[in-house]
Amino acid sequence: MDRRKASKTGYRFRLSLPATSANLGPAFDAAAIAMDFRLHIDAWPADEFSIRATGRDQAVCETVENHLILKTYSEVLQNAGKKIVPLQLRIENEIPIGKGCGSSAAARVAGIALAVRFGRLGWKEAQIIGEASRREQHPDNASACWMGGLTVARMSGEAEAQVVCIRPKGKWPLLLAIPEQSLSTEKARLALPQTYSRADAVVNVQNAMLLLTAFMQGRPDLLPSALQDRIHQPYRAPLCPLLPALEPVTGRDGILGVALSGAGPSVLIFVDPRASISKVRKVVSGEICKAQLRAELLDTKITTRGARAV
Amino acid sequence: MDRRKASKTGYRFRLSLPATSANLGPAFDAAAIAMDFRLHIDAWPADEFSIRATGRDQAVCETVENHLILKTYSEVLQNAGKKIVPLQLRIENEIPIGKGCGSSAAARVAGIALAVRFGRLGWKEAQIIGEASRREQHPDNASACWMGGLTVARMSGEAEAQVVCIRPKGKWPLLLAIPEQSLSTEKARLALPQTYSRADAVVNVQNAMLLLTAFMQGRPDLLPSALQDRIHQPYRAPLCPLLPALEPVTGRDGILGVALSGAGPSVLIFVDPRASISKVRKVVSGEICKAQLRAELLDTKITTRGARAV
Repeated sequence: MDRRKASKTGYRFRLSLPATSANLGPAFDAAAIAMDFRLHIDAWPADEFSIRATGRDQAVCETVENHLILKTYSEVLQNAGKKIVPLQLRIENEIPIGKGCGSSAAARVAGIALAVRFGRLGWKEAQIIGEASRREQHPDNASACWMGGLTVARMSGEAEAQVVCIRPKGKWPLLLAIPEQSLSTEKARLALPQTYSRADAVVNVQNAMLLLTAFMQGRPDLLPSALQDRIHQPYRAPLCPLLPALEPVTGRDGILGVALSGAGPSVLIFVDPRASISKVRKVVSGEICKAQLRAELLDTKITTRGARAV
Repeated sequence: MDRRKASKTGYRFRLSLPATSANLGPAFDAAAIAMDFRLHIDAWPADEFSIRATGRDQAVCETVENHLILKTYSEVLQNAGKKIVPLQLRIENEIPIGKGCGSSAAARVAGIALAVRFGRLGWKEAQIIGEASRREQHPDNASACWMGGLTVARMSGEAEAQVVCIRPKGKWPLLLAIPEQSLSTEKARLALPQTYSRADAVVNVQNAMLLLTAFMQGRPDLLPSALQDRIHQPYRAPLCPLLPALEPVTGRDGILGVALSGAGPSVLIFVDPRASISKVRKVVSGEICKAQLRAELLDTKITTRGARAV
């Protein structure tokens, strides 16, 4: 079936899914935000699987074998006892892969959404997020990817996530520093200790609550201290050299604080909405150079648009 | 100076401070609520210290020696290099002492407020809360006592607390089960382990954030799971037999969940605003009897009125 025909007969399905940033300092494995750069997908039934991709990581995006979207799509249909309808995909990708920006969550959510659509599974939101969270082994990115805004999530069963969605008050400009090398979430998780002192656990509970209040009440002034984390960032810093390089910029020229984006290696920089973003870019670039590192700097912000059919 | 004259000349100072309940399940050492039963104080300068007390724990309240309000008052004035003005106090106390309802925070905040007033210290809110938090060794009760509503707090220096105050959305009826025996916070703290697994630390971060969202968005439905704690309650249960006795009532007849009030031994019961409070009382009484325990049941609610001069 060619694309034009598919579109006319309603077979064509368009999806757009946001990049996401999980952990947000102290909110480790608990919260994430959706950001305004996305994975766009057009899909329609075909005789065999094929992909045309443009944008970031084009080679990975258009390799049919072991493709995370198609693999998820096929597995979900198979588990539901449905026929696997081959699809032709057109992908336009803005999310860097393997850099802590939720590329795998977006791909898995996309695969599930395609399966729900073309397999007529009739799944509800909770089931889609739950399935994606189970596959991701944590619910934060998947929840923020599906719902947009800021989400707080926890698994409440094998494949069930309990999720709340918050619309942050006010403006939350962000700068994302993305290094060249990627880092697997598995490797980043192996760097974490098995136990924590009571003081460390308590600091993260306090700061995670202060951070959530900052977003809900529109209080960027709380971020410099509320972003402090003792559960994952201190242990991942050696794997993510941008983090220790950028931590000292907090408080300079409207920089509210920095946090690892997901498991890293990218670093999320929270910017005072009244600050000059070009000045912030200059300060951040300078620190990265000084540490003899390299990174792409991406202007972004929190988006309330989740993963919805277009 | 007699009382009538003091009142007329403006020397008389009236204070009213709410009871508070800290920890709220997962928000250990991080959050507290103010409740609508209070410590009322009338104070005016006199030739020597004297107290007249009515209400709960009258004997403790009117013993001048080692009196927590007067001790705090005198120490704060002394540390500020001010003359200690003897006071005549009239106390009407509704807060049970040593039961996890913030009696010591109310007494310390009162002592500081009296010192600020009669010593003309000119302290601001942050300094008053900071001083009370330092004396309490944690900022949660002191913050909620001063500000009312729900507070999230952390120490950010020796005697400085960072506090945010939240007005919970909707109605939050509570039932407080208060046992006869008291429990010292020190003893309750000694029951806690020094380290926690990563899983336990993460569950508390997730639940504390979900709990805060529940209060801010008016979502009582989130409480049954969001109140689950792994940092303090499991270890304090042997010292606070009401907790394990009441935990099974969650979900019955509009009971949203239970939590230790502060370090215990009282238990805070969150009640669905649509539920019949008399039915809830009956269920709770039944469980307490079944466990061969005794407790007073107090109807209360979250109050937004903090400790202000009347």
